[in-house]
Amino acid sequence: MKMIQERLCKLRTSMKAAGIDCYLIPTSDYHDSEYVSGFFMVRKYFSGFTGSAGTLVVTGEEAVLFTDGRYFIQAAKELSGTEIKLMKMGEPGVPSIKQYLAQVIKEGGTLGFDGRVVKADDGKEYEEVLAQKKCSVVWNRDLAEEIWEDRPALVHNPVFILEESYSGEKASRKISRVRDKMKQEGADVHILTSLDDIAWLLNIRGSDVESCPVALSYMILTQNQALLFAEETHPEEEIWTEELRQYLKENQVELRPYDSFYSHAAQIREGRVLLCKGRVNYRLLKELPENLVLVDRPNPTSLMKAVKNSTEMENLRKSHLWDALAVTRFMYWLKKNVGKIPITEVSAMEYLESMRQKCEAYREPSFATICAYGANGALAHYSAKEDTCAEIKPGSLLVVDSGGHYLEGSTDITRTFALGEVPREMKEHFTLVLRAMLTLKNTRFLYGCRGVNLDIRAREVLWERGLDYKHGTGHGVGYLLSVHEGPNSFRWKLQPDYQENAVLEEGMVTTDEPGLYIEGSHGIRIENELLCRKGEANEYGQFMYFEDLTCVPIDLDGVDVSLLEEKDKERLNSYHKEVFEKLSPYFEGEELAWLKNATREI
Amino acid sequence: MKMIQERLCKLRTSMKAAGIDCYLIPTSDYHDSEYVSGFFMVRKYFSGFTGSAGTLVVTGEEAVLFTDGRYFIQAAKELSGTEIKLMKMGEPGVPSIKQYLAQVIKEGGTLGFDGRVVKADDGKEYEEVLAQKKCSVVWNRDLAEEIWEDRPALVHNPVFILEESYSGEKASRKISRVRDKMKQEGADVHILTSLDDIAWLLNIRGSDVESCPVALSYMILTQNQALLFAEETHPEEEIWTEELRQYLKENQVELRPYDSFYSHAAQIREGRVLLCKGRVNYRLLKELPENLVLVDRPNPTSLMKAVKNSTEMENLRKSHLWDALAVTRFMYWLKKNVGKIPITEVSAMEYLESMRQKCEAYREPSFATICAYGANGALAHYSAKEDTCAEIKPGSLLVVDSGGHYLEGSTDITRTFALGEVPREMKEHFTLVLRAMLTLKNTRFLYGCRGVNLDIRAREVLWERGLDYKHGTGHGVGYLLSVHEGPNSFRWKLQPDYQENAVLEEGMVTTDEPGLYIEGSHGIRIENELLCRKGEANEYGQFMYFEDLTCVPIDLDGVDVSLLEEKDKERLNSYHKEVFEKLSPYFEGEELAWLKNATREI
Repeated sequence: MKMIQERLCKLRTSMKAAGIDCYLIPTSDYHDSEYVSGFFMVRKYFSGFTGSAGTLVVTGEEAVLFTDGRYFIQAAKELSGTEIKLMKMGEPGVPSIKQYLAQVIKEGGTLGFDGRVVKADDGKEYEEVLAQKKCSVVWNRDLAEEIWEDRPALVHNPVFILEESYSGEKASRKISRVRDKMKQEGADVHILTSLDDIAWLLNIRGSDVESCPVALSYMILTQNQALLFAEETHPEEEIWTEELRQYLKENQVELRPYDSFYSHAAQIREGRVLLCKGRVNYRLLKELPENLVLVDRPNPTSLMKAVKNSTEMENLRKSHLWDALAVTRFMYWLKKNVGKIPITEVSAMEYLESMRQKCEAYREPSFATICAYGANGALAHYSAKEDTCAEIKPGSLLVVDSGGHYLEGSTDITRTFALGEVPREMKEHFTLVLRAMLTLKNTRFLYGCRGVNLDIRAREVLWERGLDYKHGTGHGVGYLLSVHEGPNSFRWKLQPDYQENAVLEEGMVTTDEPGLYIEGSHGIRIENELLCRKGEANEYGQFMYFEDLTCVPIDLDGVDVSLLEEKDKERLNSYHKEVFEKLSPYFEGEELAWLKNATREI
Repeated sequence: MKMIQERLCKLRTSMKAAGIDCYLIPTSDYHDSEYVSGFFMVRKYFSGFTGSAGTLVVTGEEAVLFTDGRYFIQAAKELSGTEIKLMKMGEPGVPSIKQYLAQVIKEGGTLGFDGRVVKADDGKEYEEVLAQKKCSVVWNRDLAEEIWEDRPALVHNPVFILEESYSGEKASRKISRVRDKMKQEGADVHILTSLDDIAWLLNIRGSDVESCPVALSYMILTQNQALLFAEETHPEEEIWTEELRQYLKENQVELRPYDSFYSHAAQIREGRVLLCKGRVNYRLLKELPENLVLVDRPNPTSLMKAVKNSTEMENLRKSHLWDALAVTRFMYWLKKNVGKIPITEVSAMEYLESMRQKCEAYREPSFATICAYGANGALAHYSAKEDTCAEIKPGSLLVVDSGGHYLEGSTDITRTFALGEVPREMKEHFTLVLRAMLTLKNTRFLYGCRGVNLDIRAREVLWERGLDYKHGTGHGVGYLLSVHEGPNSFRWKLQPDYQENAVLEEGMVTTDEPGLYIEGSHGIRIENELLCRKGEANEYGQFMYFEDLTCVPIDLDGVDVSLLEEKDKERLNSYHKEVFEKLSPYFEGEELAWLKNATREI
């Protein structure tokens, strides 16, 4: 607590010296990544709040932290004893960041932030407020630089090439597809700052961001030149090996120092620049000369990488099989040992990780595992800690949401397990969520449908009963990239930007993960990954269907068969038949007998 | 044929005299109405094509007619023998109107049209093409004026006031709500040219447009002034009676000559003008001074009139009951007499109309009845003609899609009747369409859902089997206004304009009318009107449901009970129970016994 006060005090001194009245610290890196490395945890450093999302705003008079519903309880706890006021975003009477700025900044005052960690769209919004009050913006100061003494270094870890047997398409061909798209959009230059887009485009991977195997980098692309800003100016370790340099050369990509990106952007002389204002940072926008015409469109790579090619599809079937073996062995162990040996949320997670590690191709978790027992399961984003985690015993449900990165692609799977005898209500809820998941994944639909058209297939069985889950039904999944990837998703709320409501294309991978969360009691989520495929084409159009990538048993101990309709039973039985066929060659003896029973027809 | 050639010849002479190389004739009136009166049937006059949608484009060298899939067969027939080439819109290789113009207009040429019948958005699109070719536009010439000798007059029929017991809200209050919305949008002036919006706003009705009880008029609204452009300059009959003039005065609406609208618009001196570019015509846009800032938004009245108030809701329940009595009596007559007395599509329509006319409150059909037997039913927009219509006899299906205007609101209902013994496949299709209709109308959903979220509830049972219908599942319905009214609808295809994908609000009326059309054999459509209502509100949000406005039996002779799921049966039985309860007080004797059987539990 005292430490936080000291840090805020130093921050205010720096603000004064820099002529800044109000300093804003969001949670991001320079690339709008979902997770960030230690160097970027400035908001955590100054506030003590450890959640993955939040914005700290500090003035001479007060300090406030904005965060969303996932973190209200945790933030309140972590901020207690400091002067920082919690702003519960979305709650009645709580201003938005923009509204708050309008309240606290004085006429003619100055707002400061590091423009590299503020999204261009957000910065533009703040500008509106400030214009009304004739305020100015200092957008090029990272005040943590001078205050945070033991700040972790900006990580530049080794980079490797993703061979064509994994990527399915040469980088040169991908670049040429992007250039075609630039022509279509009438753009002379394309600036790409999102790390997964760059990694996909160049078929390279790194490990500079937590849970997402990418390398810190920027790109500037024209019809004749491809510049990659990634080289370390003071390398301690050789990241860009001779082999990598040769590889870039072959693909006609020129390597430039990471730090030289902004000065290079500032020197683009004329033309139309394609970029996605929702993804690039505010500083880039300020550095670009004003005479340039900005073409604000989704990055062409966004849709391209979402549509997996046949090599990627074939690989994904492999990685999902390996992942299924690990999760199914974990399930076997859990069901056999619960109530007999001590198991905690953390030890269960560790056991699951050890099962994944048995597979040679496994690299690392694709996100931080959620392992939540009983009432903890009702917190959709629960994170178990060694010292406070729950003991797992018979009588309730355990939700395990986890995934892995493989060269053959990334996985994301949730299963809920019924341990011992569980109350009737839990089984009822489990069965409803199962029906929701089964209904969506068995939907046949005409080409042209988007996630907003299909989401209700999962929710209908809950909505009928006045129930719901307050999260999307599913998200796109990257290939050895971010486990949350657009533009495909299953959501019922329309995105205001038409282009973000993507049509479901063959090759897109989307999760199907409805849930139900009963505060203080239990939570359920069941998640399969679905691969979108073309089905029959006839006079009505091209029909589409989903292929299951995930092949792990659904815990039948959670199912109240009397609540299943005939077609639910058919769907469940046919899924379990497929699971048994795929997994049984890898099981034997007692384990095989268990698998047979776990996937039995009901 | 010869007549059409003569007319085209005269048109080309006029074009030459006016310096026009290419003349475009769409199908519209000055107000973007769905149906138009005789005066506006210029495209029909010059082409001979009688369909409700099409655009004729004439150059010195050729004449082409663009129309959509509903009219390919009819247009081909009606154009045969003329020089006019049919352009099948949406077919592969067929250019859009814009693309066609780009092909035929020569560098520096001139395009001509009457800007009052061309939508502003369309005109803007044509401008793009013409700019590329340095062409000019003549947008103020209606060449039919000098050629069409016996052209029907522009109709200005009597206008009446819709009392508050029908409208539920005073015009002055509605105007004040629109003014509030103008303030929110920062607009000084609002221009309204769509007739249903004006009729709703002022609580007046007329009969200047076919099937839609509105009066030709324009409005210009500011915070201090409301100008209605509707007065006839040379009245043969007094349309604006003393009573009406008094009524307008009370609501502080000033009446101006219909013809003075454009010159008035040209004199708006400054400010921000709220208008909907998708609804106003091109001429208005050209007449407005260039210094005005146009705020392009949906007309505020569009959403307001879609949300029916409690008076309107209560009235609608009445008009739907009366309408149901007529349709149910028609059904009784049809089922009893088919195969026994001669019945044709036209005589059936006439009998149905006579049943509606028995109700004192009935005014007129809300659209041209579709009465299609057997293979005719496969044409979704079939229109029976006295001399060519089919005889109705046992052995096939009859689709009847009709509706009425009442002071208590407008209705729209479709029933398909199975006459005598019909083939198993027809019953199978009938049952699938019934299941589609029942599933959608029984959907419970969270507030915030739009038509795009719910459409699949109707289609899922068809899509599962590789079937579909090529039209929307449902449209909004006006209150004694247009039977097709936005912004609510059930469609799966997203509208590019975010605001057109309206959230379903309590009080909105939308049809639920899935179908199935088997070319050369039969068609099925079953349609109820649904009133959106608020249900339970809980921790998950505000749940919504649909109340049935339509209460007419579903023909059980068409149902294959073995294809119904348990919940379909429950839904059908509960609907029929409600129908019997509502209608039975008005039936007796043999008719009552028939009704009891027609709504029996299955």
